[in-house]
Amino acid sequence: MNLGIVGYGNLGKSLRGLVQRDPRLNLVKVFTRRDPRSFNDEVMESLDNILDYKEDIDVLLLAIGSATDIPQMAPELIKNFNTVDAYDNHAHIPEYFDQMEKIALENSKVAFISTGWDPGLFSLNRLIAESILVNGHTNTFWGKGVSQGHSDAIRRIDGVIKAVQYTIPKEEILENIKDAKKDFRSYESHDRICYVVCNSEDEKRIYDEIVNMEDYFKPYNTEVVFITEEEFDRDHNSMPHGGHVIRVGENLDDNLAMYKFTLELDSNPDFTASVMIACAFAVNKYVQNGDFGAHTVLDTPPYYYSGADKKEIIAKYL
Amino acid sequence: MNLGIVGYGNLGKSLRGLVQRDPRLNLVKVFTRRDPRSFNDEVMESLDNILDYKEDIDVLLLAIGSATDIPQMAPELIKNFNTVDAYDNHAHIPEYFDQMEKIALENSKVAFISTGWDPGLFSLNRLIAESILVNGHTNTFWGKGVSQGHSDAIRRIDGVIKAVQYTIPKEEILENIKDAKKDFRSYESHDRICYVVCNSEDEKRIYDEIVNMEDYFKPYNTEVVFITEEEFDRDHNSMPHGGHVIRVGENLDDNLAMYKFTLELDSNPDFTASVMIACAFAVNKYVQNGDFGAHTVLDTPPYYYSGADKKEIIAKYL
Repeated sequence: MNLGIVGYGNLGKSLRGLVQRDPRLNLVKVFTRRDPRSFNDEVMESLDNILDYKEDIDVLLLAIGSATDIPQMAPELIKNFNTVDAYDNHAHIPEYFDQMEKIALENSKVAFISTGWDPGLFSLNRLIAESILVNGHTNTFWGKGVSQGHSDAIRRIDGVIKAVQYTIPKEEILENIKDAKKDFRSYESHDRICYVVCNSEDEKRIYDEIVNMEDYFKPYNTEVVFITEEEFDRDHNSMPHGGHVIRVGENLDDNLAMYKFTLELDSNPDFTASVMIACAFAVNKYVQNGDFGAHTVLDTPPYYYSGADKKEIIAKYL
Repeated sequence: MNLGIVGYGNLGKSLRGLVQRDPRLNLVKVFTRRDPRSFNDEVMESLDNILDYKEDIDVLLLAIGSATDIPQMAPELIKNFNTVDAYDNHAHIPEYFDQMEKIALENSKVAFISTGWDPGLFSLNRLIAESILVNGHTNTFWGKGVSQGHSDAIRRIDGVIKAVQYTIPKEEILENIKDAKKDFRSYESHDRICYVVCNSEDEKRIYDEIVNMEDYFKPYNTEVVFITEEEFDRDHNSMPHGGHVIRVGENLDDNLAMYKFTLELDSNPDFTASVMIACAFAVNKYVQNGDFGAHTVLDTPPYYYSGADKKEIIAKYL
């Protein structure tokens, strides 16, 4: 399968590394809005030239931001390429689905949207768990992991030099979830811990601004730790993440059933990239079947991710 | 949806209870090979009369044994009914799939085969985990739970009055699985503990026969505990089970990713029944789409299990 990548941030770099490692895959180009010559790397190509590669690329992996890049660029790219994206703006996913579905159908293309782990595998597990265990409670725990959005919010505060925010599930709630019989609010079941580099005279003000930031931190138990830039660079340069989707269902005679899906990821972008590549195999299958339009993890036959055929997968896995 | 059930052992009873509890479902009849009058229960009907209900039943749930009942009866029943079964004879699943596929297609019916949790959800998770994390190790841990096959094997020993066998994952392997980088053999990663009621003069012989039984117990660390019938009836009358499917994948730069799916079930038959009912919703969707033949968890679009439509599920879960 011939793949292209659009964007070369953390996710784009993970995609590149994983595609180049996989003997089933060929990386055609990584497309960038920056000057490709500045990379001194022949795999880099200007996004302006992407249509020159229209015939060479089976699936284009979009490693661009959800806030503005995907809504602007994906509806253009889907006219000429099959795409996979990790669009994660939950509230806008239904309208994004409709938009991509329409353009993909008009152009006989496939758009695999909003994949990764949340949205993505976590969504899939919530759906399956709730379809099976009709009566019960579902809880999602995120972390321990870096929240990019919360880290960015801290970095926007005046005087902050460097900052990172970890979301951490409350261990006592996680351990007793089977008997909790409750849907927890996110702020009830998680703590937030922030590591901040700033000048010492700003610490008091920055602390107050963080813990009082509405929506981001206000209802949460938030800890703020001030560290040196040296400590920051030594201890906070990786992007671990993960979490749990847990449904506890009530069966007959007070029998409980716990369905639990867990991810523990040393690198969040590496894992998201792995999921996107599996979805590229699914796109290939959809294209082979002439099943154009928008698709998601919620409607995709699972064996599509393998690149193998149905009978082979049944013999191997069932 | 109108459902019928064939068989009234543990699984059939769980199916009946869960179907009758669900307002979306109507239980037409439970079909038995025994004399239905002996139950003094108007939901019970003789299997001999099942064709009288051909027009009244949307999906028939097969709660009959995998050893001989399903291979004999399912290929007959699929001629007149859409079916869901939990056929678990792994080695024979591919040929069973082919047989059911052929007859279902000839009769415009849908057969959802080999569902439940293993085969079933565990198979699904192995497939998805290995499609995403291409390099790595997958391990399955079963238990703590009752193994019906091993309990039966002990009960066949001369002098055994009652017996149950629990399969238990080795805690130290489970806890350190992320760093193990190994596919464990089942006997390396599990212990077996047997509770047996017998006369005291038989204990030594029965112990020897159990721990030396090839395939079932021989390579395993097996503990045998002799108890009184009173203790047995008090402590060993439930059917808990569960387990874990864990894949540890190697991403870039020595980054690991752990994908872990866990079930903890107070009642094994209740949970298997819950999965079968979700699959009946999928059968309904396949029938609506005219997509006849044999289907499994590995090829079924996940939203089919919900009974809802695709757009609604995307808006709710993605």
